[in-house]
Amino acid sequence: MVKSELQRDLLDILGADGLVTEWAQRRTYEADGLAAYRSVPALVALPSSADDVAAVMRACVRHGVPVVPRGAGTGLSAGALPHPEGVLIVMSRMHRILDIDPVNQRIVVEPGVTNAAISRAVSEHDLYYAPDPSSQIVCSIGGNLAENSGGAHCLKYGFTTHHVLGCELVLPDGETVELGSSTLDPPGYDLRGVLVGSEGTLGVVTKITLRLLRRPEAVRTLVADFESPAAAGVAVSAIVAAGIVPAAVEMMDNLAIQACEEDAAAGFDVSSGAALIVELDGPAAECDAAFAETVALCQESGSTAIRVADDPQERALVWKGRKAAFAAMGRLAPDYFVQDGVIPRTRLGECLARIAEMAAEADLRVANVFHAGDGNLHPLVLYDSANPGEGERAESLSARIAELCVEFGGSLSGEHGIGVDKACSMPTMFGADDLAVMDRVRAAFDPAGRCNPDKVLPTPRLCGEKPGPYRPHPLEAAGVIERL
Amino acid sequence: MVKSELQRDLLDILGADGLVTEWAQRRTYEADGLAAYRSVPALVALPSSADDVAAVMRACVRHGVPVVPRGAGTGLSAGALPHPEGVLIVMSRMHRILDIDPVNQRIVVEPGVTNAAISRAVSEHDLYYAPDPSSQIVCSIGGNLAENSGGAHCLKYGFTTHHVLGCELVLPDGETVELGSSTLDPPGYDLRGVLVGSEGTLGVVTKITLRLLRRPEAVRTLVADFESPAAAGVAVSAIVAAGIVPAAVEMMDNLAIQACEEDAAAGFDVSSGAALIVELDGPAAECDAAFAETVALCQESGSTAIRVADDPQERALVWKGRKAAFAAMGRLAPDYFVQDGVIPRTRLGECLARIAEMAAEADLRVANVFHAGDGNLHPLVLYDSANPGEGERAESLSARIAELCVEFGGSLSGEHGIGVDKACSMPTMFGADDLAVMDRVRAAFDPAGRCNPDKVLPTPRLCGEKPGPYRPHPLEAAGVIERL
Repeated sequence: MVKSELQRDLLDILGADGLVTEWAQRRTYEADGLAAYRSVPALVALPSSADDVAAVMRACVRHGVPVVPRGAGTGLSAGALPHPEGVLIVMSRMHRILDIDPVNQRIVVEPGVTNAAISRAVSEHDLYYAPDPSSQIVCSIGGNLAENSGGAHCLKYGFTTHHVLGCELVLPDGETVELGSSTLDPPGYDLRGVLVGSEGTLGVVTKITLRLLRRPEAVRTLVADFESPAAAGVAVSAIVAAGIVPAAVEMMDNLAIQACEEDAAAGFDVSSGAALIVELDGPAAECDAAFAETVALCQESGSTAIRVADDPQERALVWKGRKAAFAAMGRLAPDYFVQDGVIPRTRLGECLARIAEMAAEADLRVANVFHAGDGNLHPLVLYDSANPGEGERAESLSARIAELCVEFGGSLSGEHGIGVDKACSMPTMFGADDLAVMDRVRAAFDPAGRCNPDKVLPTPRLCGEKPGPYRPHPLEAAGVIERL
Repeated sequence: MVKSELQRDLLDILGADGLVTEWAQRRTYEADGLAAYRSVPALVALPSSADDVAAVMRACVRHGVPVVPRGAGTGLSAGALPHPEGVLIVMSRMHRILDIDPVNQRIVVEPGVTNAAISRAVSEHDLYYAPDPSSQIVCSIGGNLAENSGGAHCLKYGFTTHHVLGCELVLPDGETVELGSSTLDPPGYDLRGVLVGSEGTLGVVTKITLRLLRRPEAVRTLVADFESPAAAGVAVSAIVAAGIVPAAVEMMDNLAIQACEEDAAAGFDVSSGAALIVELDGPAAECDAAFAETVALCQESGSTAIRVADDPQERALVWKGRKAAFAAMGRLAPDYFVQDGVIPRTRLGECLARIAEMAAEADLRVANVFHAGDGNLHPLVLYDSANPGEGERAESLSARIAELCVEFGGSLSGEHGIGVDKACSMPTMFGADDLAVMDRVRAAFDPAGRCNPDKVLPTPRLCGEKPGPYRPHPLEAAGVIERL
């Protein structure tokens, strides 16, 4: 049997300690953060080095077995969903910080290092790593690279791709290549750029060089209340139009405020129609001037109350409240779907009004908590799976919200990725020729199609001849993955 | 004869007005800004629309003829060198501005628009396009995209790739695809990122969506004199270490100062060992505070004189002087080679000292004018082609300087690209596996290898089995191109 031979080969490479073979233990890896999809991997490899990864890849080539890379498993699009006949390569043991160069503001890390650990490691040099997904305490930098992760402060500082300078990649055939460079603008094709956001389909990253930023001299934060998200949206437009580039502009609607406040007691006003968190940073002189202007613009736009959260503890509490938003939804409903779409920032009010209408039609509640500056929405569709049919209704509403974002001239996904979840919806955003080029680029890295197969790009096999938005993933029909 | 059939097809598409067939006229396109390589194209197409481009591409597919795209022809790596059996597609007629969206800070343009025309078109909205190559008055945005062009202000604002949001691309097979999106972080592979900097090898761009920036409230500029470039380098390090991010940090050594001053009379001190131009921009409050600190740091680093160029006319004159540097070299010597390499900024002094030694050994003068903040050097090797052997000696020195940059942990090219000129040197910077992946990505766009062939990537056919640094391009040996 192929699996037993592969298992022997992997044992030789990784030792008993580095290979998970028991079903009960393998099952702990059956899903990532999007628990709606589950599938138990044939084997789980826990490499400790780049050499281990390359050897595992070569063994999988010999046996013709697919591989799925996995970081911390916090992804929200089932991008790390295991293949039932494949090897799940879990990068958690590769969490060493290899080099810190404070003068050139660079750090070299293994992919299993958590996002937050990077900033911790360089804080003594007054440096930090900018992209800050809400899951930053647990998510891995390798996963961030795979998803081109964003975060509240990406409005000013850019996404993961703007901070990854180079990396070492084990290709699906087991060869190792270096992409990018620690210098700016290296010659040749920007393969580093293709890799970032490729959701584990082009190989397994074993080393990453990141750009670090100097901690800003000053940080100033306010929470402004408004009667409605649309009113808060006017303030966002006014701030941007004034030429201010805040470090972060986050919005929560009333339902989200209620959940966060119950969970984190961060001092949000639960009667507020919308709370806008605006953070400015930079040199103190700039920051103070822009902050005064921001306060004035919020007032002019009809803010009903403004709370300045300048004390570091108070600021930390505001962010704790905001970042706990998804988890806090459990206080409002037993279950929820979190959507992730992008709309042009100027159409915020219009789009939120349409979402509210759609929610009323479906007789469901939708909480909104999102990166308002980027136009990156995260509508949370609340439901109770104990009520027959409610889960299906909620899923369908969540799917229609994503379609709405594309209709508004936006995007299917802002930062959570496509994974399995939205692969069949890619044709709502891309033409057949566009997808064909993506497919050929994928084949340039992975001609045999063995690395994280059935993710990101739609295929007729998976999505039918005319893939429509949000039809159930046919791997479910084939019994390969189980949808709960 | 194939050419006459192709010519008839192209006439049908473009009309007599859109096709250059006469040898004398075709010959005017024989070189780009790197006039050392020359080759007359079989035909020159002047499309007026994306449909024209697609039809020309399809005709070239039918006749199996290579194509070479060309913007304004200002490139410095012979990336737009025509193929003697191919069609040169000149984009100069596609220079329309298609849409300006001041609220979302976006512009949609055709590729033939000049870099400077973009900022001019949006200046009434207080917006501008940030990347500013020295050739910005004449170079085209399509060429900027192909080369991922930089410029003095890319230190703070990033390269072309950070400002191109999306584009329409006619693939080598004649199909049209859209890459990227006007929203941030679109899903799927970042093919937009691969395209930017691909030097015309992946297809012909017909429409580009760019990000615009708001004009900064304040701009402050100084010119600081130092005894030597190494001393000026100490000031650059001190400024960066203080957490200041200048909009631009440019350096000229004494020889460059002499040339610029003779040419532009910008008020540089011709006895100065090195002139450092530092420009800060941003909100006035920030700018003033950082400017005072910058002046102090220059003084502490041993600056012998500091001139503040705050008056807009005076600032324009300083930049005119700096941007005229290449052209001004004609005042010092009849001929020169301009090199384009990157080194880690922290090794600036060390590298410049080594270049000076190498110049003395070769009995040649080298002027240095460069983006000091980025570590992007532009050593200009001066020579007189009337002196037998001097041209060869100068070329060899220029080549060794590029190798030196790679040895210092830098890069073969900062912003001028690889083109024909450095294709055979790519193995000094990339391993065989790295180059193989680039080659497969190229094939994903251009399986037949008909789009700007023999550029960027080395091939055994062109560079021999073991391509070394800077051996003459074998297309010369084959008589396909003529090197002067």
